Amino acid sequence: MSNLRAQISISVDGYVAGPSQSEKDPLGEGGEELHEWITKLAAWRAAHGREGGEVNASSPIVEALQENIGATLMGRNMFGGGPGPWGEQPWNGWWGDDPPFHTPVFVLTHHEREPLEMEGGTTFHFVTDGIESALEQAREAAAGKDVALGGGANAIQQYLAADLVDEMTLNVAPVLLGAGERLFANVGVPEREIELVEAIDAPDVTHLRYRFAS
Amino acid sequence: MSNLRAQISISVDGYVAGPSQSEKDPLGEGGEELHEWITKLAAWRAAHGREGGEVNASSPIVEALQENIGATLMGRNMFGGGPGPWGEQPWNGWWGDDPPFHTPVFVLTHHEREPLEMEGGTTFHFVTDGIESALEQAREAAAGKDVALGGGANAIQQYLAADLVDEMTLNVAPVLLGAGERLFANVGVPEREIELVEAIDAPDVTHLRYRFAS
Repeated sequence: MSNLRAQISISVDGYVAGPSQSEKDPLGEGGEELHEWITKLAAWRAAHGREGGEVNASSPIVEALQENIGATLMGRNMFGGGPGPWGEQPWNGWWGDDPPFHTPVFVLTHHEREPLEMEGGTTFHFVTDGIESALEQAREAAAGKDVALGGGANAIQQYLAADLVDEMTLNVAPVLLGAGERLFANVGVPEREIELVEAIDAPDVTHLRYRFAS
Repeated sequence: MSNLRAQISISVDGYVAGPSQSEKDPLGEGGEELHEWITKLAAWRAAHGREGGEVNASSPIVEALQENIGATLMGRNMFGGGPGPWGEQPWNGWWGDDPPFHTPVFVLTHHEREPLEMEGGTTFHFVTDGIESALEQAREAAAGKDVALGGGANAIQQYLAADLVDEMTLNVAPVLLGAGERLFANVGVPEREIELVEAIDAPDVTHLRYRFAS
Protein backbone atom coordinates (compact mmCIF):
# COMPACT_ATOMS: atom_id res chain seq x y z
CA MET A 1 0.00 0.00 0.00
CA SER A 2 1.52 3.29 -1.14
CA ASN A 3 0.18 6.18 0.97
CA LEU A 4 -0.34 9.75 -0.16
CA ARG A 5 1.13 11.86 2.64
CA ALA A 6 0.43 15.60 2.86
CA GLN A 7 2.18 18.01 5.20
CA ILE A 8 1.86 21.76 5.50
CA SER A 9 2.52 24.57 7.96
CA ILE A 10 -0.59 26.44 9.08
CA SER A 11 -1.49 29.29 11.43
CA VAL A 12 -3.72 28.88 14.49
CA ASP A 13 -6.51 30.53 12.49
CA GLY A 14 -6.13 28.13 9.58
CA TYR A 15 -4.12 30.06 6.99
CA VAL A 16 -1.22 28.60 4.98
CA ALA A 17 -0.27 31.98 3.49
CA GLY A 18 -0.92 35.53 4.61
CA PRO A 19 -2.83 38.25 2.75
CA SER A 20 -1.43 40.12 -0.29
CA GLN A 21 0.52 37.25 -1.85
CA SER A 22 2.66 38.37 -4.79
CA GLU A 23 5.62 37.23 -6.86
CA LYS A 24 7.90 39.16 -4.50
CA ASP A 25 6.09 37.94 -1.39
CA PRO A 26 4.80 34.46 -2.30
CA LEU A 27 3.81 33.61 1.29
CA GLY A 28 1.93 36.88 1.84
CA GLU A 29 2.11 39.19 4.87
CA GLY A 30 3.30 37.28 7.91
CA GLY A 31 3.50 34.02 5.97
CA GLU A 32 7.22 33.58 6.67
CA GLU A 33 6.36 33.13 10.36
CA LEU A 34 4.64 29.84 9.55
CA HIS A 35 7.99 28.35 8.56
CA GLU A 36 10.35 29.72 11.21
CA TRP A 37 10.18 26.45 13.16
CA ILE A 38 11.59 24.48 10.19
CA THR A 39 14.15 26.83 8.67
CA LYS A 40 16.11 26.81 11.92
CA LEU A 41 16.34 23.00 12.04
CA ALA A 42 19.62 21.26 11.18
CA ALA A 43 17.68 18.55 9.28
CA TRP A 44 16.03 21.14 7.01
CA ARG A 45 19.21 23.19 6.58
CA ALA A 46 21.27 20.14 5.58
CA ALA A 47 18.63 19.14 2.98
CA HIS A 48 18.84 22.66 1.55
CA GLY A 49 22.65 22.82 1.49
CA ARG A 50 22.99 25.09 4.52
CA GLU A 51 25.13 24.62 7.60
CA GLY A 52 24.27 24.63 11.29
CA GLY A 53 20.85 24.63 12.87
CA GLU A 54 19.05 23.14 15.83
CA VAL A 55 18.07 19.63 16.78
CA ASN A 56 14.82 19.63 18.76
CA ALA A 57 11.47 17.82 19.12
CA SER A 58 10.63 18.69 15.50
CA SER A 59 13.72 16.96 14.10
CA PRO A 60 12.33 13.39 14.19
CA ILE A 61 9.10 14.67 12.59
CA VAL A 62 10.99 16.27 9.71
CA GLU A 63 13.10 13.15 9.26
CA ALA A 64 10.02 10.90 9.33
CA LEU A 65 8.33 13.05 6.70
CA GLN A 66 11.23 12.33 4.35
CA GLU A 67 11.38 8.59 5.05
CA ASN A 68 10.00 5.96 2.65
CA ILE A 69 9.10 8.60 0.04
CA GLY A 70 9.44 7.37 -3.57
CA ALA A 71 7.85 10.29 -5.42
CA THR A 72 6.59 13.82 -4.79
CA LEU A 73 3.49 15.70 -5.96
CA MET A 74 3.15 19.48 -6.01
CA GLY A 75 0.99 22.21 -7.49
CA ARG A 76 2.18 24.73 -10.04
CA ASN A 77 2.13 27.49 -7.41
CA MET A 78 4.60 25.62 -5.26
CA PHE A 79 6.88 24.94 -8.23
CA GLY A 80 6.65 28.65 -8.98
CA GLY A 81 7.41 30.80 -11.98
CA GLY A 82 4.00 32.46 -12.08
CA PRO A 83 0.84 31.23 -13.81
CA GLY A 84 0.42 30.70 -17.55
CA PRO A 85 2.59 29.11 -20.29
CA TRP A 86 6.23 28.35 -19.54
CA GLY A 87 7.82 30.76 -22.06
CA GLU A 88 11.21 30.56 -23.71
CA GLN A 89 13.40 30.77 -20.61
CA PRO A 90 11.30 28.64 -18.33
CA TRP A 91 11.47 28.69 -14.55
CA ASN A 92 13.29 25.66 -13.09
CA GLY A 93 11.97 25.81 -9.51
CA TRP A 94 13.02 27.60 -6.33
CA TRP A 95 15.62 25.07 -5.29
CA GLY A 96 18.74 25.49 -7.48
CA ASP A 97 20.54 22.70 -9.36
CA ASP A 98 20.14 20.05 -6.63
CA PRO A 99 16.58 20.26 -5.26
CA PRO A 100 15.88 18.64 -1.86
CA PHE A 101 13.41 16.05 -3.22
CA HIS A 102 15.75 13.38 -4.66
CA THR A 103 12.75 11.64 -6.24
CA PRO A 104 10.64 12.09 -9.36
CA VAL A 105 8.41 15.15 -8.77
CA PHE A 106 5.04 15.43 -10.51
CA VAL A 107 3.93 19.04 -10.98
CA LEU A 108 0.21 19.76 -11.59
CA THR A 109 -0.12 22.28 -14.41
CA HIS A 110 -2.34 23.27 -17.31
CA HIS A 111 0.70 23.83 -19.55
CA GLU A 112 2.66 21.01 -21.17
CA ARG A 113 6.41 20.82 -20.78
CA GLU A 114 9.16 18.24 -21.26
CA PRO A 115 10.53 16.56 -18.11
CA LEU A 116 13.27 18.54 -16.39
CA GLU A 117 16.13 16.50 -14.96
CA MET A 118 18.07 18.10 -12.11
CA GLU A 119 20.99 16.87 -9.99
CA GLY A 120 20.64 14.47 -7.07
CA GLY A 121 17.81 12.32 -8.41
CA THR A 122 15.15 15.00 -8.79
CA THR A 123 13.31 15.03 -12.13
CA PHE A 124 10.28 17.31 -12.56
CA HIS A 125 7.47 15.82 -14.64
CA PHE A 126 4.70 18.18 -15.74
CA VAL A 127 1.25 16.60 -15.62
CA THR A 128 -1.63 18.24 -17.49
CA ASP A 129 -4.36 15.60 -17.26
CA GLY A 130 -5.49 16.06 -13.68
CA ILE A 131 -4.82 15.11 -10.08
CA GLU A 132 -5.79 11.45 -10.38
CA SER A 133 -3.46 10.86 -13.31
CA ALA A 134 -0.66 12.67 -11.43
CA LEU A 135 -1.19 10.46 -8.39
CA GLU A 136 -1.24 7.33 -10.54
CA GLN A 137 2.03 8.32 -12.22
CA ALA A 138 3.60 9.21 -8.88
CA ARG A 139 2.55 5.89 -7.33
CA GLU A 140 4.05 4.00 -10.27
CA ALA A 141 7.30 5.96 -9.97
CA ALA A 142 7.35 5.38 -6.19
CA ALA A 143 7.49 1.60 -6.77
CA GLY A 144 5.81 0.64 -3.50
CA LYS A 145 7.05 3.56 -1.44
CA ASP A 146 4.82 6.45 -0.38
CA VAL A 147 4.07 9.65 -2.29
CA ALA A 148 4.69 13.03 -0.63
CA LEU A 149 2.18 15.80 -1.33
CA GLY A 150 4.25 18.94 -0.87
CA GLY A 151 1.69 21.69 -1.46
CA GLY A 152 0.66 24.34 -1.99
CA ALA A 153 -2.72 24.79 -0.39
CA ASN A 154 -4.63 24.45 -3.65
CA ALA A 155 -3.08 21.09 -4.51
CA ILE A 156 -3.76 19.73 -1.01
CA GLN A 157 -7.35 21.04 -1.17
CA GLN A 158 -7.94 19.19 -4.44
CA TYR A 159 -6.60 15.90 -3.09
CA LEU A 160 -8.54 16.30 0.18
CA ALA A 161 -11.76 17.09 -1.70
CA ALA A 162 -11.24 13.94 -3.78
CA ASP A 163 -10.64 11.94 -0.57
CA LEU A 164 -7.25 10.73 -1.84
CA VAL A 165 -5.03 11.84 1.06
CA ASP A 166 -4.04 9.00 3.43
CA GLU A 167 -1.95 10.91 5.99
CA MET A 168 -1.84 14.61 6.84
CA THR A 169 0.61 16.40 9.13
CA LEU A 170 -0.38 19.93 10.14
CA ASN A 171 2.46 22.00 11.57
CA VAL A 172 0.54 24.58 13.59
CA ALA A 173 2.63 27.73 14.12
CA PRO A 174 1.66 29.99 17.07
CA VAL A 175 0.60 32.92 14.92
CA LEU A 176 -2.70 34.50 13.88
CA LEU A 177 -2.62 35.83 10.30
CA GLY A 178 -6.18 37.18 10.24
CA ALA A 179 -6.59 36.70 6.48
CA GLY A 180 -4.92 34.99 3.53
CA GLU A 181 -5.14 31.55 1.95
CA ARG A 182 -7.16 29.13 4.07
CA LEU A 183 -6.28 25.43 3.81
CA PHE A 184 -9.74 24.02 4.54
CA ALA A 185 -11.71 26.10 2.06
CA ASN A 186 -14.04 24.20 -0.26
CA VAL A 187 -12.73 20.85 0.89
CA GLY A 188 -16.03 19.37 2.08
CA VAL A 189 -16.20 16.26 4.20
CA PRO A 190 -14.17 13.24 3.09
CA GLU A 191 -15.94 9.88 3.24
CA ARG A 192 -13.18 8.36 5.32
CA GLU A 193 -12.96 9.36 8.98
CA ILE A 194 -9.89 11.16 10.23
CA GLU A 195 -8.02 9.96 13.30
CA LEU A 196 -5.21 11.50 15.28
CA VAL A 197 -1.97 9.50 15.17
CA GLU A 198 -0.02 11.80 17.48
CA ALA A 199 0.37 15.39 18.60
CA ILE A 200 3.90 16.66 19.22
CA ASP A 201 4.58 19.78 21.29
CA ALA A 202 7.78 21.23 19.78
CA PRO A 203 9.49 24.65 19.98
CA ASP A 204 7.39 27.23 18.07
CA VAL A 205 5.13 24.61 16.49
CA THR A 206 2.67 21.84 17.27
CA HIS A 207 2.72 18.86 14.93
CA LEU A 208 -0.68 17.17 14.47
CA ARG A 209 -0.39 13.88 12.57
CA TYR A 210 -3.68 12.57 11.20
CA ARG A 211 -4.57 9.45 9.24
CA PHE A 212 -7.65 8.80 7.14
CA ALA A 213 -9.16 5.45 8.15
CA SER A 214 -9.17 3.03 5.23
CA MET B 1 -4.24 40.57 37.20
CA SER B 2 -7.57 38.93 36.28
CA ASN B 3 -7.24 37.04 32.98
CA LEU B 4 -9.97 36.49 30.43
CA ARG B 5 -9.71 32.80 29.52
CA ALA B 6 -11.51 31.39 26.48
CA GLN B 7 -11.88 27.72 25.68
CA ILE B 8 -13.75 26.03 22.88
CA SER B 9 -13.88 22.73 21.00
CA ILE B 10 -13.06 23.00 17.32
CA SER B 11 -12.73 20.69 14.31
CA VAL B 12 -9.48 20.16 12.41
CA ASP B 13 -10.89 22.40 9.66
CA GLY B 14 -11.70 25.22 12.10
CA TYR B 15 -15.43 24.89 12.74
CA VAL B 16 -17.07 25.14 16.18
CA ALA B 17 -20.48 24.07 14.89
CA GLY B 18 -21.54 22.14 11.81
CA PRO B 19 -23.81 23.29 8.98
CA SER B 20 -27.61 23.65 9.33
CA GLN B 21 -27.73 24.82 12.96
CA SER B 22 -31.29 25.00 14.30
CA GLU B 23 -33.17 25.11 17.59
CA LYS B 24 -33.44 21.31 17.46
CA ASP B 25 -29.83 20.88 16.38
CA PRO B 26 -27.94 23.80 17.98
CA LEU B 27 -24.50 22.38 17.14
CA GLY B 28 -25.36 21.67 13.48
CA GLU B 29 -24.63 18.51 11.50
CA GLY B 30 -21.74 16.63 13.05
CA GLY B 31 -21.27 19.27 15.76
CA GLU B 32 -21.85 16.79 18.59
CA GLU B 33 -18.63 15.03 17.55
CA LEU B 34 -16.63 18.05 18.70
CA HIS B 35 -17.66 17.38 22.29
CA GLU B 36 -17.43 13.60 22.54
CA TRP B 37 -14.05 13.86 24.24
CA ILE B 38 -15.50 15.88 27.14
CA THR B 39 -18.94 14.31 27.69
CA LYS B 40 -17.28 10.99 28.48
CA LEU B 41 -15.02 12.48 31.19
CA ALA B 42 -15.80 11.87 34.86
CA ALA B 43 -14.88 15.50 35.66
CA TRP B 44 -17.45 16.83 33.18
CA ARG B 45 -20.12 14.31 34.14
CA ALA B 46 -19.78 15.11 37.87
CA ALA B 47 -20.10 18.86 37.13
CA HIS B 48 -23.30 18.12 35.18
CA GLY B 49 -24.81 15.82 37.81
CA ARG B 50 -24.09 12.58 35.96
CA GLU B 51 -22.36 9.46 37.23
CA GLY B 52 -19.39 7.52 35.92
CA GLY B 53 -17.03 8.51 33.16
CA GLU B 54 -13.36 8.27 32.30
CA VAL B 55 -10.24 9.78 33.79
CA ASN B 56 -7.64 10.40 31.08
CA ALA B 57 -5.11 12.97 29.82
CA SER B 58 -7.92 15.51 29.32
CA SER B 59 -9.02 15.37 32.97
CA PRO B 60 -6.36 17.74 34.37
CA ILE B 61 -7.09 20.16 31.49
CA VAL B 62 -10.80 20.25 32.29
CA GLU B 63 -10.06 20.68 36.00
CA ALA B 64 -7.55 23.48 35.28
CA LEU B 65 -10.12 25.28 33.12
CA GLN B 66 -12.44 25.43 36.14
CA GLU B 67 -9.77 26.55 38.62
CA ASN B 68 -9.46 30.14 39.84
CA ILE B 69 -12.58 31.23 37.92
CA GLY B 70 -14.58 33.97 39.66
CA ALA B 71 -17.07 34.86 36.91
CA THR B 72 -18.22 33.60 33.52
CA LEU B 73 -19.06 35.39 30.26
CA MET B 74 -21.18 33.93 27.49
CA GLY B 75 -23.09 35.00 24.39
CA ARG B 76 -26.86 34.84 24.05
CA ASN B 77 -26.58 31.88 21.66
CA MET B 78 -24.80 29.81 24.26
CA PHE B 79 -27.37 30.73 26.93
CA GLY B 80 -30.01 29.71 24.38
CA GLY B 81 -33.73 30.28 24.08
CA GLY B 82 -33.57 31.65 20.56
CA PRO B 83 -32.94 35.25 19.46
CA GLY B 84 -35.18 38.22 20.23
CA PRO B 85 -37.01 39.45 23.36
CA TRP B 86 -37.33 37.12 26.32
CA GLY B 87 -41.14 36.78 26.34
CA GLU B 88 -43.43 35.92 29.24
CA GLN B 89 -42.12 32.45 30.04
CA PRO B 90 -38.46 33.15 29.53
CA TRP B 91 -35.82 30.52 28.89
CA ASN B 92 -33.63 29.80 31.94
CA GLY B 93 -30.66 28.16 30.22
CA TRP B 94 -29.80 24.62 29.16
CA TRP B 95 -28.50 23.49 32.52
CA GLY B 96 -31.48 22.91 34.87
CA ASP B 97 -31.83 24.34 38.40
CA ASP B 98 -28.15 23.94 39.37
CA PRO B 99 -25.97 25.06 36.41
CA PRO B 100 -22.34 23.94 36.38
CA PHE B 101 -20.88 27.48 36.62
CA HIS B 102 -21.21 28.23 40.37
CA THR B 103 -20.23 31.87 39.67
CA PRO B 104 -21.98 34.98 38.45
CA VAL B 105 -22.55 34.56 34.68
CA PHE B 106 -22.75 37.60 32.40
CA VAL B 107 -24.82 36.96 29.27
CA LEU B 108 -24.33 39.27 26.26
CA THR B 109 -27.74 40.21 24.86
CA HIS B 110 -29.63 43.03 23.17
CA HIS B 111 -32.66 42.44 25.40
CA GLU B 112 -32.89 43.62 29.02
CA ARG B 113 -33.85 41.20 31.72
CA GLU B 114 -33.68 41.04 35.52
CA PRO B 115 -30.90 38.87 37.03
CA LEU B 116 -31.82 35.20 37.31
CA GLU B 117 -30.61 33.45 40.46
CA MET B 118 -30.20 29.68 40.23
CA GLU B 119 -29.01 27.10 42.76
CA GLY B 120 -25.36 26.43 43.58
CA GLY B 121 -24.06 29.97 43.26
CA THR B 122 -24.92 30.62 39.61
CA THR B 123 -26.68 33.92 38.90
CA PHE B 124 -27.23 34.98 35.29
CA HIS B 125 -26.84 38.72 34.67
CA PHE B 126 -28.02 40.05 31.31
CA VAL B 127 -25.75 42.74 29.88
CA THR B 128 -27.03 44.97 27.08
CA ASP B 129 -24.32 47.64 26.86
CA GLY B 130 -21.58 45.74 25.06
CA ILE B 131 -18.67 43.36 25.49
CA GLU B 132 -16.38 45.78 27.33
CA SER B 133 -19.00 46.58 29.94
CA ALA B 134 -19.73 42.89 30.37
CA LEU B 135 -16.02 42.14 30.90
CA GLU B 136 -15.71 45.00 33.39
CA GLN B 137 -18.71 43.73 35.38
CA ALA B 138 -17.39 40.17 35.26
CA ARG B 139 -13.94 41.25 36.46
CA GLU B 140 -15.48 43.15 39.36
CA ALA B 141 -17.59 40.14 40.31
CA ALA B 142 -14.56 37.86 40.01
CA ALA B 143 -12.79 39.84 42.76
CA GLY B 144 -9.26 39.11 41.60
CA LYS B 145 -9.93 35.69 40.13
CA ASP B 146 -10.06 35.03 36.37
CA VAL B 147 -13.05 35.32 34.05
CA ALA B 148 -14.06 32.33 31.91
CA LEU B 149 -15.28 33.05 28.38
CA GLY B 150 -17.55 30.11 27.68
CA GLY B 151 -18.67 30.79 24.12
CA GLY B 152 -20.25 30.59 21.68
CA ALA B 153 -18.15 31.33 18.67
CA ASN B 154 -19.59 34.79 18.14
CA ALA B 155 -18.78 35.95 21.68
CA ILE B 156 -15.21 34.62 21.42
CA GLN B 157 -14.81 36.30 18.01
CA GLN B 158 -15.86 39.65 19.45
CA TYR B 159 -13.42 39.42 22.37
CA LEU B 160 -10.60 38.21 20.08
CA ALA B 161 -11.26 41.03 17.60
CA ALA B 162 -11.09 43.53 20.50
CA ASP B 163 -7.80 41.93 21.66
CA LEU B 164 -9.24 41.29 25.13
CA VAL B 165 -8.59 37.53 25.43
CA ASP B 166 -5.58 36.64 27.59
CA GLU B 167 -5.62 32.83 27.32
CA MET B 168 -7.22 30.54 24.76
CA THR B 169 -7.52 26.77 24.88
CA LEU B 170 -8.51 25.09 21.62
CA ASN B 171 -9.73 21.51 22.01
CA VAL B 172 -9.12 20.15 18.51
CA ALA B 173 -11.36 17.15 17.81
CA PRO B 174 -10.24 14.75 15.05
CA VAL B 175 -13.13 15.50 12.73
CA LEU B 176 -13.63 17.44 9.50
CA LEU B 177 -17.02 19.19 9.34
CA GLY B 178 -16.58 20.74 5.90
CA ALA B 179 -18.84 23.71 6.64
CA GLY B 180 -20.56 25.48 9.52
CA GLU B 181 -19.56 28.19 11.98
CA ARG B 182 -15.88 29.07 11.75
CA LEU B 183 -14.18 30.36 14.91
CA PHE B 184 -11.57 32.57 13.21
CA ALA B 185 -13.89 34.46 10.87
CA ASN B 186 -13.59 38.26 10.91
CA VAL B 187 -11.26 38.19 13.88
CA GLY B 188 -8.33 40.03 12.27
CA VAL B 189 -4.89 40.12 13.85
CA PRO B 190 -4.64 41.00 17.54
CA GLU B 191 -1.89 43.44 18.50
CA ARG B 192 -0.52 41.10 21.11
CA GLU B 193 1.44 38.07 19.90
CA ILE B 194 0.17 34.61 20.65
CA GLU B 195 2.41 31.99 22.23
CA LEU B 196 1.91 28.31 22.83
CA VAL B 197 1.86 27.34 26.52
CA GLU B 198 1.44 23.62 25.94
CA ALA B 199 -0.01 21.02 23.60
CA ILE B 200 -1.60 17.94 25.17
CA ASP B 201 -2.19 14.76 23.17
CA ALA B 202 -5.31 13.21 24.78
CA PRO B 203 -7.80 10.53 23.67
CA ASP B 204 -9.94 11.89 20.78
CA VAL B 205 -8.71 15.47 21.22
CA THR B 206 -5.62 17.67 21.18
CA HIS B 207 -5.56 20.54 23.65
CA LEU B 208 -3.67 23.61 22.42
CA ARG B 209 -3.19 26.18 25.20
CA TYR B 210 -2.21 29.65 23.98
CA ARG B 211 -1.46 32.88 25.81
CA PHE B 212 -1.48 36.38 24.42
CA ALA B 213 1.76 38.13 25.40
CA SER B 214 1.08 41.16 27.58
